[in-house]
Amino acid sequence: MESAIISDIFSQSFSNRSKRLKASAIRELLKVSTQEGIISFAGGTPDPATFPTEEFAKISERVIKEEYKKSLQYSTTEGDGMLKDAYIEILRKHDNIDWIERDNMLVTTGSQQGLDLIGRIFINNGDDIAVELPTYLGALTAYNVYGPNYHGIELEDDGLNVDQLEDLAKGLKREGKKLKFLYTITNFHNPAGVTMSLEKRKRVLELAEEYDFFIVEDDPYGLLRFEGEKLPSLYYLNKGRRVILLNTFSKILAPGLRIGIIISNKEVIRKCVVAKQGADLCGPAITQKIAGHFLHENDIKKQLDMIIKLYKEKKDIMLKALDKYLGDVEGVSWTKPQGGLFLWVRLPKNIDSGEMFKEAVEKYKVAYILGSAFYFNGEGKNTMRLCFALPPKEIIPEGIKRLAELIKSKI
Amino acid sequence: MESAIISDIFSQSFSNRSKRLKASAIRELLKVSTQEGIISFAGGTPDPATFPTEEFAKISERVIKEEYKKSLQYSTTEGDGMLKDAYIEILRKHDNIDWIERDNMLVTTGSQQGLDLIGRIFINNGDDIAVELPTYLGALTAYNVYGPNYHGIELEDDGLNVDQLEDLAKGLKREGKKLKFLYTITNFHNPAGVTMSLEKRKRVLELAEEYDFFIVEDDPYGLLRFEGEKLPSLYYLNKGRRVILLNTFSKILAPGLRIGIIISNKEVIRKCVVAKQGADLCGPAITQKIAGHFLHENDIKKQLDMIIKLYKEKKDIMLKALDKYLGDVEGVSWTKPQGGLFLWVRLPKNIDSGEMFKEAVEKYKVAYILGSAFYFNGEGKNTMRLCFALPPKEIIPEGIKRLAELIKSKI
Repeated sequence: MESAIISDIFSQSFSNRSKRLKASAIRELLKVSTQEGIISFAGGTPDPATFPTEEFAKISERVIKEEYKKSLQYSTTEGDGMLKDAYIEILRKHDNIDWIERDNMLVTTGSQQGLDLIGRIFINNGDDIAVELPTYLGALTAYNVYGPNYHGIELEDDGLNVDQLEDLAKGLKREGKKLKFLYTITNFHNPAGVTMSLEKRKRVLELAEEYDFFIVEDDPYGLLRFEGEKLPSLYYLNKGRRVILLNTFSKILAPGLRIGIIISNKEVIRKCVVAKQGADLCGPAITQKIAGHFLHENDIKKQLDMIIKLYKEKKDIMLKALDKYLGDVEGVSWTKPQGGLFLWVRLPKNIDSGEMFKEAVEKYKVAYILGSAFYFNGEGKNTMRLCFALPPKEIIPEGIKRLAELIKSKI
Repeated sequence: MESAIISDIFSQSFSNRSKRLKASAIRELLKVSTQEGIISFAGGTPDPATFPTEEFAKISERVIKEEYKKSLQYSTTEGDGMLKDAYIEILRKHDNIDWIERDNMLVTTGSQQGLDLIGRIFINNGDDIAVELPTYLGALTAYNVYGPNYHGIELEDDGLNVDQLEDLAKGLKREGKKLKFLYTITNFHNPAGVTMSLEKRKRVLELAEEYDFFIVEDDPYGLLRFEGEKLPSLYYLNKGRRVILLNTFSKILAPGLRIGIIISNKEVIRKCVVAKQGADLCGPAITQKIAGHFLHENDIKKQLDMIIKLYKEKKDIMLKALDKYLGDVEGVSWTKPQGGLFLWVRLPKNIDSGEMFKEAVEKYKVAYILGSAFYFNGEGKNTMRLCFALPPKEIIPEGIKRLAELIKSKI
């Protein structure tokens, strides 16, 4: 009953901004990849076996029954104080960040809302901002609507190419313009799986001082390090002077809580709070209280150790399978992540992971995310992201075998 | 440790948009009004006694334990199907709307996110939109950031002044401009407590056809009618042709769920879905499943009857107290709502409810919301909103008595 004319009434009224809204390639592909029989390395989703299900079930019943006057009522925009206190403790213990107070934090509806609020309070149409190539798709989705002018910085095995960043900042200055901010995922990059070296972290901060830009450091995976030495965050190194830190509970507790955290100076947080008032008033108190009570009653270290053990095992199985089935294929390489959920595969230039996706799913019964989704400029056609966190250990080798057969058929 | 120079790094970078972000007057005042000993008619918050606490507690434990693979994982942006089905049933039974499918609905993080997404996909900077005087503050907060050009339509005891709306649409047309949309709360208006008559509903829809604008109908309170005849929604009368309907569970189940619903044609919903992907990816599945299971297992009619009985009683007590303490005071009048949570008091022109707020709270120990917060143009200084839903029945007369003493002291 939806005739063309009905649609026209609204569609002629869509804002210019809305024309920059594009459906997330990932979420559309995910719908396909969950079909029966397909081994999927696509979704960036944690293994539900890592969720503190029993504890959450008990706590939820309790906070609804005993604290209903708060847990079922409107809550503050700023977020639950008890949860914030628990996170302050995590930052102190695990990242040596010991100067954070409640007013330095805003609890958001997932980190995605953090990205949106950052875009909202900072990005003017046409502003120059730097992102990695590839970068997190959700950041592009959040920022796109505010119309920034993206500049891509190539990602290397030890983090972004700092010389390119310097050239960019210098070039913009020469033109009388200015790099507003750099968006970067420092640890176990999504999608690339790489980690920025300490040397590069220091250099990035020097450049931020020299060219007067700030940094949005997205760190959803930092606590999930399997091996290698833990590196200090840009936020820590810089004492938050020029860095806004985004964190989330999605990968260490459960994504269904939809809890992210923005950490910054009090003025930025106040601005984000007002922006959030307009965006959704406040988050659900229930989920915040579940997380808050869980963190107060349990040692997060135990939870992290359990996840790390599981994901490291899965990562090792995937790397071993990649070696076995694709190790001798010229032009195919992949990153070796020291943590997180993802690794990144580069294929020979002539192979388009987007073009072969249909065949992958329908004929080879294996799914991945096409790399180009993570490039704002359409590059990366010969790349793909594999998530090792969700699929059961036993089927990872078979999935990689199928993927290898597909790739070899294209060479 | 936050020196001026640290703040400058970020504050010099704030977007132009962010300068339109102002902290909600209501939320700041609410912080004051919750102090010990104050009788507050301020917050627009339901009575927690109406929350289905026991049922929610049980369901939450169950959906986390038994459905953790979905309830704790990322969910779809569109929202939980079971919850949508339950709401389709409510629309069918209570509003005679029988043509809605899942794709005509988007579950949002409270109705506030619905307002934001509407602003995001429709409002260009400078677009002409019409709002009631007074109107819901949260709508202004949501839309402000997108820079509309507001036009105020006076609110009368039977809804907005339709002649003013016609003059506005005609005037804009004459200037070669166009009214993009009208935002209206049809039932038991927040803040004014009034309901749009059937005659006016029909006239508004005629004007929408004639001047080619659409309508955002916000209806959080429609199911909470205490008395009088139920009126069909604009959305129903118009079969959704030119109307987007916003609903919420905040007033009929619990605000802490943070569940709102946008109802419109599939193209608008698709656009809103993509906008939501950028805004917060998806809402928490837990709260949606709590609401969905509750609605499938319980008769919402029973829940509504219970709330209606309680709020009607409180409303009657408040009206009686107003009559008793302010009935003979010249220049003071109030609306007599047939449902919802609010009534609206008009004071003599020379009294400024904002100026006397501090005295109200500190000396008279009573709180309200200043009416001017609901006017985009700073008018309404001699008005105030009173919420009768939250305060206990027994203390409402004492609160009105205090308020009357304050008001009389100003005359």
